[in-house]
Amino acid sequence: MYRTHNCGELRKENIGQEVTLSGWVQKSRDKGFMMWTDLRDRYGITQLIFSEEKSSQELFEKARTLGREFVIKITGTVIERTSKNDKIPTGDIEIEVSALEVLNAAKLPPFTIDDDTDGGDDLRMKYRYLDLRRRPVQNNLIFRSNLALETRKYLAGENFIEVETPFLIKSTPEGARDFVVPSRMNPGQFYALPQSPQTFKQILMVAGMDKYFQIVKCFRDEDLRADRQPEFTQIDCEMAFVTQEEILNTFEGLTKYLFKSTIGADLPDFPRMTYDDAMRRYGSDKPDVRFGMEFTELNDLAQNKGFVVFDSAELVVGICVPGQAENYSNKDIKKLTEWMQRPQIGAKGLVNVKCNADGTFKSSVDKFYSQEDLKGWADKMGAEAGDLLLILSGETDKTRKQLNELRLEMGRKLGLMKANDFKPLWVVDFPLLEWDEDAQRFFAMHHPFTSPKKEDVQRMLNGDHETMKNLRADAYDLVINGSEIGGGSIRIHDRVLQERNFKLLGFTDEEAEDQFGFLMGAFEYGAPPHGGIAFGFDRLCSVMNGQNSIRDFIAFPKNNQGRDVMIDAPSAIAGEQLKELQIQLNVQESGGEK
Amino acid sequence: MYRTHNCGELRKENIGQEVTLSGWVQKSRDKGFMMWTDLRDRYGITQLIFSEEKSSQELFEKARTLGREFVIKITGTVIERTSKNDKIPTGDIEIEVSALEVLNAAKLPPFTIDDDTDGGDDLRMKYRYLDLRRRPVQNNLIFRSNLALETRKYLAGENFIEVETPFLIKSTPEGARDFVVPSRMNPGQFYALPQSPQTFKQILMVAGMDKYFQIVKCFRDEDLRADRQPEFTQIDCEMAFVTQEEILNTFEGLTKYLFKSTIGADLPDFPRMTYDDAMRRYGSDKPDVRFGMEFTELNDLAQNKGFVVFDSAELVVGICVPGQAENYSNKDIKKLTEWMQRPQIGAKGLVNVKCNADGTFKSSVDKFYSQEDLKGWADKMGAEAGDLLLILSGETDKTRKQLNELRLEMGRKLGLMKANDFKPLWVVDFPLLEWDEDAQRFFAMHHPFTSPKKEDVQRMLNGDHETMKNLRADAYDLVINGSEIGGGSIRIHDRVLQERNFKLLGFTDEEAEDQFGFLMGAFEYGAPPHGGIAFGFDRLCSVMNGQNSIRDFIAFPKNNQGRDVMIDAPSAIAGEQLKELQIQLNVQESGGEK
Repeated sequence: MYRTHNCGELRKENIGQEVTLSGWVQKSRDKGFMMWTDLRDRYGITQLIFSEEKSSQELFEKARTLGREFVIKITGTVIERTSKNDKIPTGDIEIEVSALEVLNAAKLPPFTIDDDTDGGDDLRMKYRYLDLRRRPVQNNLIFRSNLALETRKYLAGENFIEVETPFLIKSTPEGARDFVVPSRMNPGQFYALPQSPQTFKQILMVAGMDKYFQIVKCFRDEDLRADRQPEFTQIDCEMAFVTQEEILNTFEGLTKYLFKSTIGADLPDFPRMTYDDAMRRYGSDKPDVRFGMEFTELNDLAQNKGFVVFDSAELVVGICVPGQAENYSNKDIKKLTEWMQRPQIGAKGLVNVKCNADGTFKSSVDKFYSQEDLKGWADKMGAEAGDLLLILSGETDKTRKQLNELRLEMGRKLGLMKANDFKPLWVVDFPLLEWDEDAQRFFAMHHPFTSPKKEDVQRMLNGDHETMKNLRADAYDLVINGSEIGGGSIRIHDRVLQERNFKLLGFTDEEAEDQFGFLMGAFEYGAPPHGGIAFGFDRLCSVMNGQNSIRDFIAFPKNNQGRDVMIDAPSAIAGEQLKELQIQLNVQESGGEK
Repeated sequence: MYRTHNCGELRKENIGQEVTLSGWVQKSRDKGFMMWTDLRDRYGITQLIFSEEKSSQELFEKARTLGREFVIKITGTVIERTSKNDKIPTGDIEIEVSALEVLNAAKLPPFTIDDDTDGGDDLRMKYRYLDLRRRPVQNNLIFRSNLALETRKYLAGENFIEVETPFLIKSTPEGARDFVVPSRMNPGQFYALPQSPQTFKQILMVAGMDKYFQIVKCFRDEDLRADRQPEFTQIDCEMAFVTQEEILNTFEGLTKYLFKSTIGADLPDFPRMTYDDAMRRYGSDKPDVRFGMEFTELNDLAQNKGFVVFDSAELVVGICVPGQAENYSNKDIKKLTEWMQRPQIGAKGLVNVKCNADGTFKSSVDKFYSQEDLKGWADKMGAEAGDLLLILSGETDKTRKQLNELRLEMGRKLGLMKANDFKPLWVVDFPLLEWDEDAQRFFAMHHPFTSPKKEDVQRMLNGDHETMKNLRADAYDLVINGSEIGGGSIRIHDRVLQERNFKLLGFTDEEAEDQFGFLMGAFEYGAPPHGGIAFGFDRLCSVMNGQNSIRDFIAFPKNNQGRDVMIDAPSAIAGEQLKELQIQLNVQESGGEK
């Protein structure tokens, strides 16, 4: 037996007991005649004491050879500490060691195993097994495990059945790129890894499972931007015989339960905002409503006063930054303007108005606007003396996006995005289709299985091109603190409507039949109305912990090149494997630098 | 709103209420002036009543158009049934329908949606969404969901953390064949889908996670024999600082809990049997101990009496089939002998001895053995009058395997394998290595990470070739009713020993480093002693329900060609996809028939 207790559980009550512990040497303090060693495991830290006086010579010598991260097993007696440590639960006691066994020695770790490590990202990922020994990362994984369990308990309590859907499915090029898997038994053919279990969960509704969920890995072969992973986890859910209202209520219930049961947070009822409102008021379909600075449109007040930039703009829109008029020098404004002009954001310029304490206004466009004009703006924006107005103009969609970035930046700068202030929000009434000017085709705003609103069904079946741009869907996103946590929709459950949607999305009849014939076929054998939602589980973990990166909640994440640097994957495979799969490499020589 | 209640919950107490239900039309009985319709959902069946007298003409006409599997929504009043049905929980009531809406019509299903269906396997799989509407299949999936939840609850209660390990990993050709995934971002390189999370769970132990589990999909690209799936599910577990004894106790606890909490079965303490004993007594490392007929070795009594077949055999061994002497005519014995001689089993012959009621013996080898000889056999085998002795001879391993088949066949024939009689068993002390005469190399009996028993470590490091054949491992299998439900081992946690094992298994140093360098590296930074187990989750589901096929517990299984016939996967992919992946097909023309 390696232990009678773990390193986190001994207390005053155990004083006098003989115990056996195993764990890692966190650190030792050698005072010459006495030595203290912190023994660590997942559960905590227990202090060991070796003394020249009480320990045998041999034991004391052996203790001195222990290095950081050695794995040891000790036996000893629990004694009361003379100087207690009230920072750790075991701080009242220590172990007077009578026997010590080194279970495994350890080389010096390439970085320190501590809450704040000196290891860079690359090093930490290469030695992930050492990085995972650090308490914050370990706590993240424990949190994740707990969150998954609470999710399952709650949904099971609501009569949801967890059904495992297959990972080896069929490639459907619509949407993101699939990872594919060559089939040895069916040469020339490929499986695809699921981007989501979407069609399977719909099939389960047709199959009468009524309420389905799954916490499941999904796969997308996309170019990895920051904080995206080729494999990620969803809480995937579907219900039959439901309205949008019932879905929102069910998953608002789940979300509240998860916040309460894992971090003790009471969430308020979730407000709902239409997609149009969100875009108009925040320039984003995932507004962070922890702080204000809502958009105010100024076309009516700012146009036709001779300022050609505004006059020629489709939209003039601004935010009011409270109390910052005096804090922003011309130099600061210039810096902010340059930040907005970076290609990532692409604003042409930034107009500012300072609402001075004396009731006057100072603006970068004083030339064109009177004090009265500026007062009009300030009034409309609800500004008070001391506030700073920041105004953009241009094409509506672009300008809103830019102002959204500016608003978030100001929120960050002013410390308005507090980590443990949770502001959930349902964004509803998304458009069904999005017209892509470049591709000259429609894309599904949510996905090709999303239903138009009931009142839009006839217009969708019979309407003209322009009508299609204005169809609304029963689609919804759950947004918390500016992160999209979940999204879903009521689905089409009628073959004719689904065919129409595929056609609008540019599928030929053959393509639709080839890729989704089974689903449309299923719709003919008694498909119930149904809908669902999927939560980004990695993102949910990070948002609940007020952290930005999902990577810290994934045990073995991949880097931006999609590589696992610990195991060094992907890698070349044996020629024999390729031969069995009846494929061959066709890798382009990359001439020179890349 | 589609429903106020589901189709399984209305009772006498609800009489008089107006309710709305939605579901599928199971069947209708039209009596001309009255019509009854069974409305079905996951929760049950509720009887609807339409009558010429009470319903409007329009409603009554509409009801008559309803076909099987139509999806409808009705509103009506709960009334007491005149003729009650005590076979269903809703049998006291029916619904007098006042409003009917057809939510979706249905084509006539290609097979009947009933407990016993007329659909063949192929048809059921193609229309899996209809097959899954059948109560027994639905119950299987509900059972599976429940079993997974109970597993998680129990293990979480034991401080296990569920950690998701990656699906896109590295190909390691040892063991079964990997499914591979070409990496677009790393041209010419491939990920592999995990055959199990083995190395990752060991890494998690090195990382100090202490107790890990995961219910996880695993993948093996093997030729699919009956009841094997290319993707299957494991309950995968690992613990640090544990002995084999602690692992067995922990997972015996889990198994008992699962049987109790899901099917109400109390399992006895699990007996333990060494691998050697299992092979000697049952000719199998997964003996079905629901019934006796243990092997008796007869070399000492049956050899050197002039019967050359026995004399030249390495092993003479038999079973005693109780009470079957008179039931087996010469013709029956001949049939049984032929069954044993089929190539799948390959016995050369089958010797029988009938223990007659009068105390005499009748045998197929009377010529060589006296009555006294045969009595000696019978005594050693514990036979009584009326018993039938069946005896095989030949090379030890082969003969044991053959007699195992015979024993199981007799158990089946005599009805001794009762579905709800659960007889668990730990088989322990497996050999570490298995010598393959054809390949002229060792294979790992469990897997390359399994530790030899402590007392065998030095022999493994220093011993000669013959010594390697006799090493025992801390490896164990959980067997229930002749099915291997789980298997595991204590792992190697020392670099030197792991290197030695790879060398014995025929790895070059480079291959070992290339494939498992990260693991051996991890062992140098303070790896704790650890071990674990994995349960075949699909198999556990079927065994607990006394069923033979795992397919019925998988929502969307693949057929023997690895195909999902519902979605028609795998399939060809677009040339554009191949180009992006920088691979090309190299499919052999198959000349003529295949």
